[in-house]
Amino acid sequence: MEANSTARVVIENVHPSVDCGRFPARRIAGDTVVVTADIFADGHDAVAARLLHRGPGDAEWTASPMEPAGNDAWTGRFRVEELGLHRFCVEGWVDRFASWRDGLEKKYAAGRDVAVDLLAGAEIVEREAERAGPEAAAQMMKLAGRLKDAARPDRAVSAALGDEAATLMRRYPGPEFATQPDRELEVRVDRPRARFSTWYERFPRSCSPDAERSGTFRDLEALLPEIARMGFDVIYLPPIHPIGRTSRKGRNNSPSASEGDPGSPWAVGSPEGGHKSIDPGLGTFEDLERLIESASRLGIETAVDIAFQCSPDHPYVREHPEWFKIRPDGSVQFAENPPKKYEDIFPLNFETDQWKSLWKELKSIVTFWLDKGIRIFRMDNPHTKPFPFWEWLLAEIKRECPEAIFLAEAFTRPKVMKRLAKAGFTQSYTYFTWRNSKPEITAYLEELTRTDVKEYFRPNFWPNTPDILPEFLQYGGREAFVIKLVLAATLSSNYGIYGPAFELVENRALPGREEYLDSEKYEIRHWNWNAQGNLKDFIARINAIRRHNPALQETNNLRFFDVDNEQMLFYGKMASDPSQTVLVVVNLDPASVQSGWLRIPMGELGIDPAQAYLGDDLLGGQKFIWHGEKIFIKLDPRVVPAHIFRLRTRFRRETDFDYFM
Amino acid sequence: MEANSTARVVIENVHPSVDCGRFPARRIAGDTVVVTADIFADGHDAVAARLLHRGPGDAEWTASPMEPAGNDAWTGRFRVEELGLHRFCVEGWVDRFASWRDGLEKKYAAGRDVAVDLLAGAEIVEREAERAGPEAAAQMMKLAGRLKDAARPDRAVSAALGDEAATLMRRYPGPEFATQPDRELEVRVDRPRARFSTWYERFPRSCSPDAERSGTFRDLEALLPEIARMGFDVIYLPPIHPIGRTSRKGRNNSPSASEGDPGSPWAVGSPEGGHKSIDPGLGTFEDLERLIESASRLGIETAVDIAFQCSPDHPYVREHPEWFKIRPDGSVQFAENPPKKYEDIFPLNFETDQWKSLWKELKSIVTFWLDKGIRIFRMDNPHTKPFPFWEWLLAEIKRECPEAIFLAEAFTRPKVMKRLAKAGFTQSYTYFTWRNSKPEITAYLEELTRTDVKEYFRPNFWPNTPDILPEFLQYGGREAFVIKLVLAATLSSNYGIYGPAFELVENRALPGREEYLDSEKYEIRHWNWNAQGNLKDFIARINAIRRHNPALQETNNLRFFDVDNEQMLFYGKMASDPSQTVLVVVNLDPASVQSGWLRIPMGELGIDPAQAYLGDDLLGGQKFIWHGEKIFIKLDPRVVPAHIFRLRTRFRRETDFDYFM
Repeated sequence: MEANSTARVVIENVHPSVDCGRFPARRIAGDTVVVTADIFADGHDAVAARLLHRGPGDAEWTASPMEPAGNDAWTGRFRVEELGLHRFCVEGWVDRFASWRDGLEKKYAAGRDVAVDLLAGAEIVEREAERAGPEAAAQMMKLAGRLKDAARPDRAVSAALGDEAATLMRRYPGPEFATQPDRELEVRVDRPRARFSTWYERFPRSCSPDAERSGTFRDLEALLPEIARMGFDVIYLPPIHPIGRTSRKGRNNSPSASEGDPGSPWAVGSPEGGHKSIDPGLGTFEDLERLIESASRLGIETAVDIAFQCSPDHPYVREHPEWFKIRPDGSVQFAENPPKKYEDIFPLNFETDQWKSLWKELKSIVTFWLDKGIRIFRMDNPHTKPFPFWEWLLAEIKRECPEAIFLAEAFTRPKVMKRLAKAGFTQSYTYFTWRNSKPEITAYLEELTRTDVKEYFRPNFWPNTPDILPEFLQYGGREAFVIKLVLAATLSSNYGIYGPAFELVENRALPGREEYLDSEKYEIRHWNWNAQGNLKDFIARINAIRRHNPALQETNNLRFFDVDNEQMLFYGKMASDPSQTVLVVVNLDPASVQSGWLRIPMGELGIDPAQAYLGDDLLGGQKFIWHGEKIFIKLDPRVVPAHIFRLRTRFRRETDFDYFM
Repeated sequence: MEANSTARVVIENVHPSVDCGRFPARRIAGDTVVVTADIFADGHDAVAARLLHRGPGDAEWTASPMEPAGNDAWTGRFRVEELGLHRFCVEGWVDRFASWRDGLEKKYAAGRDVAVDLLAGAEIVEREAERAGPEAAAQMMKLAGRLKDAARPDRAVSAALGDEAATLMRRYPGPEFATQPDRELEVRVDRPRARFSTWYERFPRSCSPDAERSGTFRDLEALLPEIARMGFDVIYLPPIHPIGRTSRKGRNNSPSASEGDPGSPWAVGSPEGGHKSIDPGLGTFEDLERLIESASRLGIETAVDIAFQCSPDHPYVREHPEWFKIRPDGSVQFAENPPKKYEDIFPLNFETDQWKSLWKELKSIVTFWLDKGIRIFRMDNPHTKPFPFWEWLLAEIKRECPEAIFLAEAFTRPKVMKRLAKAGFTQSYTYFTWRNSKPEITAYLEELTRTDVKEYFRPNFWPNTPDILPEFLQYGGREAFVIKLVLAATLSSNYGIYGPAFELVENRALPGREEYLDSEKYEIRHWNWNAQGNLKDFIARINAIRRHNPALQETNNLRFFDVDNEQMLFYGKMASDPSQTVLVVVNLDPASVQSGWLRIPMGELGIDPAQAYLGDDLLGGQKFIWHGEKIFIKLDPRVVPAHIFRLRTRFRRETDFDYFM
């Protein structure tokens, strides 16, 4: 018999848990992890439970009591500070003293003779004393003595039912017959930027102030103050390595490059070096170090792009042919998505017999850039490399450097994107780029924030990327850019733009495609960053609102609310203090003025229906005095397509209006 | 490195699965188990998957292919015949030949040179040949030869793309680099009566035709033909053991019995014997055997009640004091729910040090009755015995006798009831007894039939039991009995009644309680089974409809449909052949005529909206010719509160009307 008659407590449905505990849930340093479980026993005995938690550096479990939450559900919580993998589990047992005490209380109240019950209670206390520390044991023996004092039964009963006895007996939980957990669960704790980050992507080679030459790290460095003013905290660079020459692509992805065409940075590697080298045209390692430091002084982190693939000229091709697929004619297999061919790219063959040396080398690429001071990595096309590789690599790196953040550039099928997140990516690209209508946005965000997905998948919303100029931006004019910016920045606490194409409202595409015309991927551009109509000030305002409102610094606090116009979206980023909640209403139609009635969630926000309240638009600066739950809003996209409100329920003095900025 | 670069396929979300595979799902012999899983790999390669199934007697796995169902979901199926625990798992791998073939087809269509691709294909085929049987290997080598025939590239391409090559290569799935499952999943296969049964509970001691003496097994035997005519297939007897005398309860649960009071059968055990003895007043083992045989000839199985508890006079109390809790004054602890005392019942102490001998003895009780020919057990109060005990006991018994059926009499909290089902009970009592309104019934049945609960919890609906005369029956008159009968019999494929109290519309309760007045639990009753107004014919009709309509013989095929009256409930038991679907509309209000418009689910039933169709009421015998989806129905509870329809979309000849009975 493996079973045991005495471990009577059942523990089920422990959360947070991803895929039955196969993967860790994700949290941020400083979070309180709320653990829920169903815990119960047969019969009528009282049950007790505790939560055991162990941080990455802890040799021992720390226990904390769990509390019943009704209908056999229990709740416990622990705070996470240290970065890395935390473990937790739940233990439950029958609380003999509490069970006995409940019965005694009822019998005594009903006037029954409790003499024998008091003796039974004394036995329970004496048994517990054997397991307690000496001080508590002495107190328990004293309590047992009182319970056995037949001469003074009323005193015995009050000793039994008193708070002192309850506290004493609860101090020594009795896992003598505790149910042990089937499985320990894990929580990966990242630093706050994993949940709240504002990315700006820029090609350094297009940063030159001089139209006669290409840009460098130094040129980008000069732009940092303006990037900081716009409110970004991550500057992300496309691959900075030497670019292959063989089969180099020309402008607009033409199959052959002309003299002077710089090639795609994603064709990594040339005789000058591979993934651990810098394209000499961009500068030196010292220049990069300066860039990182200057950015850091402005509160900006530098992120690089890692694309695990090689141009035909990459040193690996010569030095490690065993990492590539060789065709029957002896040539190296290039990338293809038949009938399309990408002859400037050789994929790595993860099915090689030599996969261990390949994995090791790829890890060494990441640690190389960690050593250079990089902590944020945008991983290119992760969905074309095996999941077990990512699970291994990301765990290995985070063990050595728990600050590391990895953004998965996986625009692929839903389950593949989710699996990459489970496998360890810190943030993920999403379908937001193509979600424009109210039902599309609502359904997608509900999935991300209200289902199990929220436990492991941290979205990073990008309205555009160098690879994607979506049709909404192609056809919707400047208004469309503003709408997508507001949505990205307020729906998701992580978002980014590819600039300056975004803030300059670049919307020229290759005909019938979602590719930029004259894409920077294949040529050097010289931008007029201060061109009329640019969105820099608007972006700065939006990002300042994000920085000043903690409710916008998380994503899973999103709730959608009613507005009676299908072209308008109304949602809240909820805060435990309702005055910190941010309400957003957006006109999704870039072409027309739209208006509708919002239904303010007065109950959730604790607003007295009898009282007037203040709607303070952080975006436009207007202040509205409202009462009742139905509020009329009209939004002209040519002025501003959104309001971002905070509400105040009491406003007496003028200074009350000054809480923002 | 534990990970492996070559097992590229991911398998997630395999179903059916109960609590991450901790417990088996339930099916019936003859079922086809549909297995779903999410299966995918990195990149663009074709994936293949198979389902492995192993019955209880199988030494080896049987493999069958899985098919893609869109969005990375896959489906497979296996049929279960043998009773017992079946195992299954899913394997997935990259299909190299199919991947190559897809690419070849596209490149060839685009007019690209495929000479090198054909050679690459030959290499794949040759590698597969190494693993295939000699005959297939020969065919593969021939195929490889054709692919390599540079002189005739068009013939090579057509060989590669032909069905013959696809079939040949698919015959030998390539789990060389297959993803192995994390965990095998289980399905427990029961006999059909586990899913479709119609129970009749009756106290043999109240079956005497002679008011001067108490009833016996022989008296009950004489009633069997009428019970069979009513359509029941399980006759369930309350405990048949000798009844204790110490602290015996009197009529209406009075604390002391009068001379001649028979006591509660649940106070098991007297000097005449315990759980393996028969109350001499009921008859002998031979009488029981006759009863079982007579019932069996009428298509009825005999079920007994096992209550793992003892009267103070049970031989165990004397022979095995170690199985009971001894109070500090030396007395045995009686049952209590403070301040209430049940001094006629001693609970067994499952926390005893001697739990192993206790478990063994309790198992021997079940096997004792198995040896007497009993295959169906109603287990009393299982929620007051440890879950690990039930999991062990039920698995042990089913291993020895997979036909055994266990009904859990657990009227307790939801999670406890569910856990008992997971632990191995075949059927379970439910809250149906107290669910009367449309939202109550709908929400409860949706939970039972549309959530994971359906995989392990088989409801058995009881409108009444000897312990419960619900208020709806107390106050709703005969009409309420008919309503609850129709609901029980058509919502759930397992249901039962406690007779003859039910069919005689016994609705006298103890004041303010849901206990029967003059309950048979404490006294012998002499019933006039043919009293005017009895429901026997109506019950017979309902049960005949159940027997003739397979759609009513399962529960999870339930769907609720619209009717625009809150007092009316409209639902269907769906069949794969829509003409077999049964539609039920019930007036839930026993006091008033109710009417409303049904919306017939014409799309689901494949009814052409342009065509008239026939609604055939199996209950009332009327036939309605309808067209369109909106149908008006009026139900008078004093006539009959329900229709049970089958629909026909073509009706040309009179014989078409005769398909039922």
